[in-house]
Amino acid sequence: MYETIALVGATGAVGRIVLDQIVSRKLPYKRLKLLASERSVGKEVRVGDQTIKVELLEPDAFKNVDLVIGSTPDEVAAEFAPWAVAAGAVVVDESGFWRMDAKVPLVIPEVNPDAVDHHSGIIASPNCSTTQMVVALAPLHKAARVKRVIVSTYQATSGAGLAGNEELRDSIRDSLAGKTHPPKTFAHPIAFNLIPQIGSEKQDGYTSEEMKMVYETRKILGDDDIQVCPTCVRVPVLIGHSESILVETERPLTVMEATELFRGADGVTVVDDLAAKQYPMPLDCDGKDDVFVGRIRHDISGSGGIAFWCVSDNLRKGAATNAVQIAELLMRKAAAV
Amino acid sequence: MYETIALVGATGAVGRIVLDQIVSRKLPYKRLKLLASERSVGKEVRVGDQTIKVELLEPDAFKNVDLVIGSTPDEVAAEFAPWAVAAGAVVVDESGFWRMDAKVPLVIPEVNPDAVDHHSGIIASPNCSTTQMVVALAPLHKAARVKRVIVSTYQATSGAGLAGNEELRDSIRDSLAGKTHPPKTFAHPIAFNLIPQIGSEKQDGYTSEEMKMVYETRKILGDDDIQVCPTCVRVPVLIGHSESILVETERPLTVMEATELFRGADGVTVVDDLAAKQYPMPLDCDGKDDVFVGRIRHDISGSGGIAFWCVSDNLRKGAATNAVQIAELLMRKAAAV
Repeated sequence: MYETIALVGATGAVGRIVLDQIVSRKLPYKRLKLLASERSVGKEVRVGDQTIKVELLEPDAFKNVDLVIGSTPDEVAAEFAPWAVAAGAVVVDESGFWRMDAKVPLVIPEVNPDAVDHHSGIIASPNCSTTQMVVALAPLHKAARVKRVIVSTYQATSGAGLAGNEELRDSIRDSLAGKTHPPKTFAHPIAFNLIPQIGSEKQDGYTSEEMKMVYETRKILGDDDIQVCPTCVRVPVLIGHSESILVETERPLTVMEATELFRGADGVTVVDDLAAKQYPMPLDCDGKDDVFVGRIRHDISGSGGIAFWCVSDNLRKGAATNAVQIAELLMRKAAAV
Repeated sequence: MYETIALVGATGAVGRIVLDQIVSRKLPYKRLKLLASERSVGKEVRVGDQTIKVELLEPDAFKNVDLVIGSTPDEVAAEFAPWAVAAGAVVVDESGFWRMDAKVPLVIPEVNPDAVDHHSGIIASPNCSTTQMVVALAPLHKAARVKRVIVSTYQATSGAGLAGNEELRDSIRDSLAGKTHPPKTFAHPIAFNLIPQIGSEKQDGYTSEEMKMVYETRKILGDDDIQVCPTCVRVPVLIGHSESILVETERPLTVMEATELFRGADGVTVVDDLAAKQYPMPLDCDGKDDVFVGRIRHDISGSGGIAFWCVSDNLRKGAATNAVQIAELLMRKAAAV
């Protein structure tokens, strides 16, 4: 049923990993089309043992396409998704554009797989910082109902794509050589620095990235009473977003219970032995698909909540892996009918 | 009354800045002695237009010394402070060893200056991550009583001294060259990485650095009911600790009120205009003595609290500046008698 797949944005930081994942997870497709803007048309991309030429992203490109994975900025997704849907394809979109649309399910396969059953042609994959947090929160929510989350993020430069990593590497090289490096991708220097703003100002002094963590969390977990206070910060790390999370649940959880819930959750790996200096770190999570959790402890400020540290490869579970998992889920469900 | 000053640990990262501050703040001393372990004895150190030879740190070295500033590890401070007190000197100590001793005042001159009046020879300067947080919290506490603080830190490598910065620079150079760099100062690689552990395991899954933020905050603000849930993280930044803070007060504060309280506080500078991309960042605070506050907003998770972002040069207000300010305060009080 989903025989022809198209990938929009194959040459970006996430698109490359989507291709790797399509091959390594052995997605059961027959034909693969790569679509991109004029600039990339004609480029040859290696996919497994095939070489595929990039074609122009235009309405006609979706003729006979069954399933589309989109790894593009919001404004591109806003334009191409309706073309694909009109042509009869289902779109799995990684951009932020469609996520909060009431007709668009927002899906993490380990958390709300059944949400894919009710779409109108577009299924959205959540924001990177939201995805890893919700994968970790989901088992606690199911067992004890999440009431409130306070989260501070430590987000890698690859969240801003290949250009983000290039800017971090180049500016650090220049900084070590005593040269200045005017920022382009980021609003401020990122070498040996932190930028406490990701996205634009959105509401009440919070940024767009922060508000995604509020609204997307509620939509995925299907609970509008969940309260989230987020602070999103860019750090000089190439790959892997980290999050310091304090979660308050309706029924208080012990550390042991929370740890067991994390251990039993799909897509979560617990690395937690402070005495042995073991906890998740970005370098260790680079290239892995799981969400890693550690530093699990009770909130000593008296809420009865649980504090923990959560790291995941933002290009994988935070983007490519989750989108490919959604595609996989659609294909499995279609094959089972 | 305080005519002869001794500095213990003059050749460390903080000691160098203490010397700069003694000169730039024109501390009214007559004689200055520099004391250190055998390894540094005989070294000549430039202080203003003087050159001073480092002498051996031993009990006799404190003869005729009136005031000592100590910039040493805990175990050194444990040993030398009693020698200095026995010789009749007052010690301003930056180490962690004496801070929680009931007979030792823990002082931030902008916050609890009168605490210096009741000492038994030793006055302690707080931990770097605590100092900047408490400088920011103090005006809110005075106006509305702080009940609970949730804080996630982003701490610079210079918190581990000169060796910490050397390791960050060298390991980043090696990483960019594709070489591995076995960590020495830190337990894990710090280049393009984060380490969610500072200090050793202390209690309930929290580290020694985290528990300092709990106990020292209570002692400085003189309120044992203040609850703190800290997460301390080392980041690949050379100078400047940053903190994402959520504070819940007994009387809820508006953002405007909190901002005015910050603006009116000694030692606090507000940098807060998200629309104009203005907020405190480590690179901007390097070499400055103030505590910088921005991203001030109400807690959208419903506590009635205030969320904010706080950055300060950890070697300055977090260490050297605060110690020199305590010395200055003692001298001013003695002169006023």
